[in-house]
Amino acid sequence: MAKLARKVALVGAGMSKFGNHFPVKRNPDLWIDAWLNASKSVDNGIEPKDIDACYVGNYSSDLFNHQGHLGPQMANLVGLTPKPAPRFEGACASSGIALRQAIIAIASGIHDVIAVCGVECMTELPTAGVTDVLATASDSLFEFPAGATFPGLYGTLASAHFKQYGTTAEDLMRVGIKNHENGAENPYAQMQQSIKDMMASKKKRYEEQGRDIPDWNDEFDFLKSSSNPIIAYPLRLFDCSLITDGSACLFLASGDKAKRFTDTPIWITGTGQGSAALSLHDRDNLTSFIAAREASRQAYEMSKLKPKDIQIAEVHDCFTIAEIVAMEDLGFYEKGKAVEAIRNGESKRDGSLPINTSGGLKSKGHPVGASGAAMPVEIFKQMRGVAERNRQVKFDVERALTHNLGGSGGTCVVTIYEK
Amino acid sequence: MAKLARKVALVGAGMSKFGNHFPVKRNPDLWIDAWLNASKSVDNGIEPKDIDACYVGNYSSDLFNHQGHLGPQMANLVGLTPKPAPRFEGACASSGIALRQAIIAIASGIHDVIAVCGVECMTELPTAGVTDVLATASDSLFEFPAGATFPGLYGTLASAHFKQYGTTAEDLMRVGIKNHENGAENPYAQMQQSIKDMMASKKKRYEEQGRDIPDWNDEFDFLKSSSNPIIAYPLRLFDCSLITDGSACLFLASGDKAKRFTDTPIWITGTGQGSAALSLHDRDNLTSFIAAREASRQAYEMSKLKPKDIQIAEVHDCFTIAEIVAMEDLGFYEKGKAVEAIRNGESKRDGSLPINTSGGLKSKGHPVGASGAAMPVEIFKQMRGVAERNRQVKFDVERALTHNLGGSGGTCVVTIYEK
Repeated sequence: MAKLARKVALVGAGMSKFGNHFPVKRNPDLWIDAWLNASKSVDNGIEPKDIDACYVGNYSSDLFNHQGHLGPQMANLVGLTPKPAPRFEGACASSGIALRQAIIAIASGIHDVIAVCGVECMTELPTAGVTDVLATASDSLFEFPAGATFPGLYGTLASAHFKQYGTTAEDLMRVGIKNHENGAENPYAQMQQSIKDMMASKKKRYEEQGRDIPDWNDEFDFLKSSSNPIIAYPLRLFDCSLITDGSACLFLASGDKAKRFTDTPIWITGTGQGSAALSLHDRDNLTSFIAAREASRQAYEMSKLKPKDIQIAEVHDCFTIAEIVAMEDLGFYEKGKAVEAIRNGESKRDGSLPINTSGGLKSKGHPVGASGAAMPVEIFKQMRGVAERNRQVKFDVERALTHNLGGSGGTCVVTIYEK
Repeated sequence: MAKLARKVALVGAGMSKFGNHFPVKRNPDLWIDAWLNASKSVDNGIEPKDIDACYVGNYSSDLFNHQGHLGPQMANLVGLTPKPAPRFEGACASSGIALRQAIIAIASGIHDVIAVCGVECMTELPTAGVTDVLATASDSLFEFPAGATFPGLYGTLASAHFKQYGTTAEDLMRVGIKNHENGAENPYAQMQQSIKDMMASKKKRYEEQGRDIPDWNDEFDFLKSSSNPIIAYPLRLFDCSLITDGSACLFLASGDKAKRFTDTPIWITGTGQGSAALSLHDRDNLTSFIAAREASRQAYEMSKLKPKDIQIAEVHDCFTIAEIVAMEDLGFYEKGKAVEAIRNGESKRDGSLPINTSGGLKSKGHPVGASGAAMPVEIFKQMRGVAERNRQVKFDVERALTHNLGGSGGTCVVTIYEK
C-alpha cells in the first residue's frame, strides 16, 4: 500500500479575489494577490528564504494568454529564483496535481517547504475562445469535430444520470441554489449573490423600467424561465460554472518544519490521482468517473479514513451534475442516492455533510488551473474556524476532503486533510 | 542537504525515430513507438500491470496540436488507465521535469515503478508557427513585442560570449560539426549525415546539374557559405537545432523493484532543478545560466560527485552556443575555457569528455517536450555499451550526466546516473 515517507502539513492558504480581472490584472498580478493573502494566513510568517520550490498549476496560459513556461515566471515574481519551478497540467485539475506533487516532493525528502501556485487568466479571450480552449481538454481529434464542447459533454453525462437514476432538472437547480447561497458569504467569490437575491434584483429592475414583473414564486420558477436559458440540454446557464480570472496559493511544509510556521497545522493524510480515456465514447460508464473513484480509493487507503469520516468537502462542480456525480464517486452516497441527500438539504452549510461552502466553481468562480489550489483554501479556513461572513460551519472540522476533476473526467485528484 | 529517501533506478529506455512525421504520425503514434522500444530494452520485460503511473512531459500540444490534457491520453494508449497521469511543463525542459518528478515520486514511497513519457509533434505547424509557439516560452509580454524569438535571444547570448571570452563563429561551427558526426551514427536521429557528407552530396548534386562546383576545402568553408545563411547574428542555420516530431520513454523503478526488471540497473544518484527570470533583460549575466548552475549544484551535492567525475554528458544544444555555455555551467570547464577544449576535440566521441554522442538536439532533432527524456535514452545505451553503429564510446561509462534547458534558460534540470 502506498504511503508517504514523511508527514506533510498545510501551514498557509489564500486566494486572490476571483472575477473578471483582465486587462487590469493578468496571471502575475493575480498570483501576487494570492501569495500575499496566503502569507498573511501563516501564523508566524513566511518568507521566500523559507521556501524550497514553487509548484505551479495552470491549464493553458499558452492558449489563453500566449505565454508558456509559467513556472519560472511565477517563482521570479515572489523572490524564489533560482529555485525549482515546475508547472503541472491536468486540465481543470492542474493545481490539484501541483498540490499532489508538492505533497510527494516533501514526503520524498527533497524539499521541506513548497509554495503551490494555481493560476489562470481566462477573460483575455472572448467567451467563444474560452469554450474552444477548454474543449482542447477533451479529445480534440474525435469529440471536437463532432461539435462537442464541455457543456455538451456534461449535458450527455447529465442525460445519462437522469435516465439511469431519475435525477431531475430541479435536482441540478438545487445544487446551484445552494452554491450561490454559499458564494454570497464569500468575499473572494466572483458572484456574491444568492439566486433569490438575483431574482429580487431582477424583479426590482423590471419594476423600475415599468415592464411586466415576472410571476416567479421561488428560485425554481426563475431558473425555469427564459432568464436561465438552456445551454446544452438538460444544462441551463445556471448549471454551468463561471469564466474566471484568479489565483490561489498554498504553503506546504514537512512535519518537522511545520512547527516553525504554526502551532495548528492542517495535516494532509491522503492523496490520490486517477485517469481515464479523454473521450466519452471510450468510457464504459457515463454516470460515474473512473478517475474519481480511483483517486478517492487511493486517498482513503492512504489516510485510513472512510467516506463517512469526512465532515466537509469541496468538490468539482464545473457543472451542477458534476457535484452530484462527485458525491457518489467519493462514496458519500450510494450510486443514484446523492439527489435524495440534496433534496433533504444534507449538503447545505447547516446539513450533515456540507459541500462547497466556498460557493464552489458555480458561484466562487472557476479559473480552471487555479481551482484545485483554491479548494484547499476553503478547507484551511473552515478547519481553522475563520471562514468569512456567515459561511463558517457550526461544528469543529477535523477531517475534510477536496475533489478536483479535469476535463470531462480524464483526470481526478483527491486530497484528505486532518487536524 | 536534500537527499532521496529511497534509491531510484532507470531500468529501460527507448525512443521513436525523430523526424518529420506529421500527419502520418502524431503524439499518440510517436509515444507508442517510444514505449515499444523502451519495453524491448527491459531485460526481463515490463507490462502495464507492473507500472504505477505515467508521467508525461510535453511543452505545448495546446498550441502545436490544439490538444491539451495529454497525460490521461498517453496513459490510456499503453493500458495504464486509471492510474495517475500528470503532465509536466518547463518549455524545452518539460520531460526533464517529468523525469525529475518521477524520481521524486519513487523516492517518496508513493509509487514503485513509473513510465516517463516525453512527446512533441511540432511539424503540424509551418515553421513560422513553430517559431511563434516556441517564443511563448520566453517573456511574451516584453520580449515578443521587441521581435525577439529564440534564435534572436540565443544570438544575443552568443554575442555576449564572443565579446567576453573571445569565442568565435568557428567555435560554434565545431560544435555543429561534432554533433552531426555523432548523429550520423544514430539510427533514431533526424539528420543522419555529417557536415562533410552533406558538403560532398551538395558538390555532387551541383556537378550533376552542371553548375559551378563550390570551392569548399573543408566544413568551415561550407558553413561560411551561403549554404549556411545567417538566422540571427552570429547564429547561422547550422547553429540551430531542428524542428522535430518525436517521443522518448523511460522506465524508472525503486531500488527494491529494480531487480525484478534487470540485473544491471542504472542508478539515478542526483537530480537538480533551477529557475530564472524568463526575460534576458532581467538577468545579471548573459554568458551563463543561473538555472543551470543551480540545477547542477543540487545534483552534484546529492550524488556526492564532482564535475571531474562525469565521463559523458548529453547537454541541451538547442543552439551551438548553448552547448558551450552548458560545458561551463556544469563545471566541466572554467568560464570561458570550454572553447579551448572544443578546439582540442575533448568533447568528441573519442575525446576525454564526450558530449552529445547521440548527435544532440542539433542532429538527433529537438521535439521540444521529448528532448529531456531522449537524453537519458542515449546515456542508458552508452552505459550499457549498446549504442548503435559506430558511436559507442570506447571506455566503460560508470558516471554520466544529462542537462536539459528550458526556454532561454528559465528552467534547467540536471540528472546524474551511475552504474
